[in-house]
Amino acid sequence: MFETAEIGHKLAKSQYRREEPRLRERLLKLQYRLLENAGFPVVILVNGVDGAGKGDTVNLLNEWMDPRHIRTRAFGPPGDDARERPEMWRYWKALPPKGRIAILFGSWYSDPIFERVAGHRKRARLERRLERIRHFERMLVAEGTLLIKLWFHLSEKAQAKRLKELRAHEETAWRVGPGEWKHHKHYAGYIAACEEALRETATAEAPWDIVDSSDAAYRALTTGRLIADRLAARLAGKHPKMSPPPPPPATPIDGKTLLAALDYSHRLGHDEYKRKLEKLQAEIALLTRSKAMRNRSLVLAFEGMDAAGKGSTIRRITAALDARHYRVVPIAAPTDEERAQPYLWRFWRHVPGHGEVAIFDRSWYGRVLVERVEGYASEFDWMRAYPEINDFEEQLAQAGAIVAKFWLAITRAEQLRRFHAREEVSYKRYKIGPDDWRNRRKWPAYERAVADMVERTSTRSAPWHIVASDDKHYARIAVLEMLRERLEKAL
Amino acid sequence: MFETAEIGHKLAKSQYRREEPRLRERLLKLQYRLLENAGFPVVILVNGVDGAGKGDTVNLLNEWMDPRHIRTRAFGPPGDDARERPEMWRYWKALPPKGRIAILFGSWYSDPIFERVAGHRKRARLERRLERIRHFERMLVAEGTLLIKLWFHLSEKAQAKRLKELRAHEETAWRVGPGEWKHHKHYAGYIAACEEALRETATAEAPWDIVDSSDAAYRALTTGRLIADRLAARLAGKHPKMSPPPPPPATPIDGKTLLAALDYSHRLGHDEYKRKLEKLQAEIALLTRSKAMRNRSLVLAFEGMDAAGKGSTIRRITAALDARHYRVVPIAAPTDEERAQPYLWRFWRHVPGHGEVAIFDRSWYGRVLVERVEGYASEFDWMRAYPEINDFEEQLAQAGAIVAKFWLAITRAEQLRRFHAREEVSYKRYKIGPDDWRNRRKWPAYERAVADMVERTSTRSAPWHIVASDDKHYARIAVLEMLRERLEKAL
Repeated sequence: MFETAEIGHKLAKSQYRREEPRLRERLLKLQYRLLENAGFPVVILVNGVDGAGKGDTVNLLNEWMDPRHIRTRAFGPPGDDARERPEMWRYWKALPPKGRIAILFGSWYSDPIFERVAGHRKRARLERRLERIRHFERMLVAEGTLLIKLWFHLSEKAQAKRLKELRAHEETAWRVGPGEWKHHKHYAGYIAACEEALRETATAEAPWDIVDSSDAAYRALTTGRLIADRLAARLAGKHPKMSPPPPPPATPIDGKTLLAALDYSHRLGHDEYKRKLEKLQAEIALLTRSKAMRNRSLVLAFEGMDAAGKGSTIRRITAALDARHYRVVPIAAPTDEERAQPYLWRFWRHVPGHGEVAIFDRSWYGRVLVERVEGYASEFDWMRAYPEINDFEEQLAQAGAIVAKFWLAITRAEQLRRFHAREEVSYKRYKIGPDDWRNRRKWPAYERAVADMVERTSTRSAPWHIVASDDKHYARIAVLEMLRERLEKAL
Repeated sequence: MFETAEIGHKLAKSQYRREEPRLRERLLKLQYRLLENAGFPVVILVNGVDGAGKGDTVNLLNEWMDPRHIRTRAFGPPGDDARERPEMWRYWKALPPKGRIAILFGSWYSDPIFERVAGHRKRARLERRLERIRHFERMLVAEGTLLIKLWFHLSEKAQAKRLKELRAHEETAWRVGPGEWKHHKHYAGYIAACEEALRETATAEAPWDIVDSSDAAYRALTTGRLIADRLAARLAGKHPKMSPPPPPPATPIDGKTLLAALDYSHRLGHDEYKRKLEKLQAEIALLTRSKAMRNRSLVLAFEGMDAAGKGSTIRRITAALDARHYRVVPIAAPTDEERAQPYLWRFWRHVPGHGEVAIFDRSWYGRVLVERVEGYASEFDWMRAYPEINDFEEQLAQAGAIVAKFWLAITRAEQLRRFHAREEVSYKRYKIGPDDWRNRRKWPAYERAVADMVERTSTRSAPWHIVASDDKHYARIAVLEMLRERLEKAL
């Protein structure tokens, strides 16, 4: 993997002096075109071996370009808020908006590689993390990010030479501590883990560039040119080839759908409802205040056709919760800030910490429901959303979140009845508009989308609960019962 | 995942009787078009839960189509020869040639799923096997195979009903033994493992089709139509979308290549050569006859420019081996049988069993060397070959093979000298022809291909050994020393 980067590439000083100013000007111009165009963000990952001059290179890039529009971030051990959340959370937070450049030092590769080298983790565990990274990067690129992955390399010999050089000069001696020498001693094991990480994550959409770093001039010019070339190509409209997502399932030959096959006849009387409601709310109140909840979190997502009763059901849940620890997140049109980021970014920002509850009134499923049906998202975009969503929820679950998703299912006739009722009651009239009637006309398309969604995103760690909701009492009790059961199992 | 397949799809008997003859005729016609066209093979995977009628369906397919051109294979526990080889070996052996259909019962999914359900293996281990399967299937499809993956599904309830029905009739009672009821008892755990396996392997190029099997007529017609539709689409030239392979590495800005940077000045005198040769051959003889070799195997691949000395070096190795246990495989143009199979098939068939040695004089690297340079393989084909080859070699290593690859590197001047020498010696003249002169003119393209190849396929389990070979004595001793070292480490 590193063979070509170990043959000692070199550049004459004179050539460097001649080419550097031109490269600088080119980079700056490209950066300004990126800012004006603001069509995509740029993420540059800086990784490599100790002593390869990663810091010098980052400084140089900030010198060559306008540093006000570059976010440079280094990642040390995760803080408390990051430890309570999925491991990718802090990287989501560091993503630049469209038009900007982020230089991520160490990035999401350092952690898994170090864990592996330190022997904390098995190879199989490293491979799972690498797969997650592959999915994350594919998502970034599919969302439009220009992702440049740089690996600054030194052979074992070159590293020894470089560390000695640094130590020999007063002004750089501080950069070589016992840590660096210790790493150097384990060079072979370290490089083996790196090699695996690079190989497994060198994809068509997010390839690695390995930079021989034994000569400072060669390293600097190679890096600068690489970034300029990629940026120029992308500004000229050249997109990387993406892997296609899996095709949607075939339509059953008898035409029967999941929602149509549901039994909507359940009814629940008022008294029984009241009695059950109180009991369930008390149970949920106890469970969510239990000690076991202190290092867990709860993520609920509610979806359903218009007027299915999402809001009123959510209120029956929040009545049982401690107001300091829950947040209801209603999902409407994204803000400007959210629009400048990948699709899932606006949900990641609401991921709860330990002991907290987040309830989403509509959710990240918008992409495979309304955006699919209305054509707001391209087929490529909504098809790739299924695995992306599965990844997101799996990460939540692995970080200790209890994830429950509810589809409140009503019949078309019941929806019509509720629409009319809304129009008749003055204080409910704001809840019904032309959008609702338009959505209603697309009922069969929504039914199809729901069936595909459930089939593709109902997982063991984040199952879909489909609740027949023509009777509101029955539906609310069913949701609370399912929730109690999930909480009991998990806590 | 299985939600839509559990809502009880059904077909009226009358509809079945009406449609079955038409479907039958259509399938048979398509099968004959496939045979005549002989452009691609068809692989149908039959998987699913107990009692879902997999066997009945396979019988039906053999009845509907011409069974002489269908190979039906079921896979039980692996036999001795399979256990000594990589786990995918027996599936490679079952692949049909172009124009034919293979129905694989259980296929490469049964093993990993059962291992997981039985709790022998961790989840991480399952995921690694699934990744291997994903790569294998991508390779099959990229090589032209029409791959149809069927999952015959029953809900827990439907399975219980079906097993009881089978037991109730004298002629089918034998099909339900204690094994089936035991599986049924662990339905939930089994389905969880299946769901993960299906989700992780539902790719764009090899999606799953889930068939609700609670009604025999629905199941049969759905399966038949699915196969007919896929076959018809493929015969009409519709190919699945493939994921693009990673792009090749960028050219270094100083233009220096791996082979040009090698030190070719080593020389070795005749006496020292003789002494070292004898000693090394004795050591290798002992190592390959050691007890530790009884459950290992050895795979050697030799590559190099024309006249680099591959044949004579191989002879220095075989001199140390037991003739009963080694085979030298010279790689020339593929046979007809080999041409009707995926590219790597002709190498898989020579994978050695325990205690055996296979030496390849030229190898599977032809695709990224001569086929790339001469344009025999498309860019898509040689680019995807790197990860395919890495998979192949990793599987060899995991099955206990010691894999060593040698590139015998000579300078262009030395090659010229050897070409002239060959033309002058009568008994060597057969070794030089117009092909050699033509290859020689493409030297820089080969250099580039070699650098890319080494960078992408030199791994810890199957490293490249690059040997400066302008001096034959030096090169032979270097190869034998590397080989001894690899054997010592491994045994």
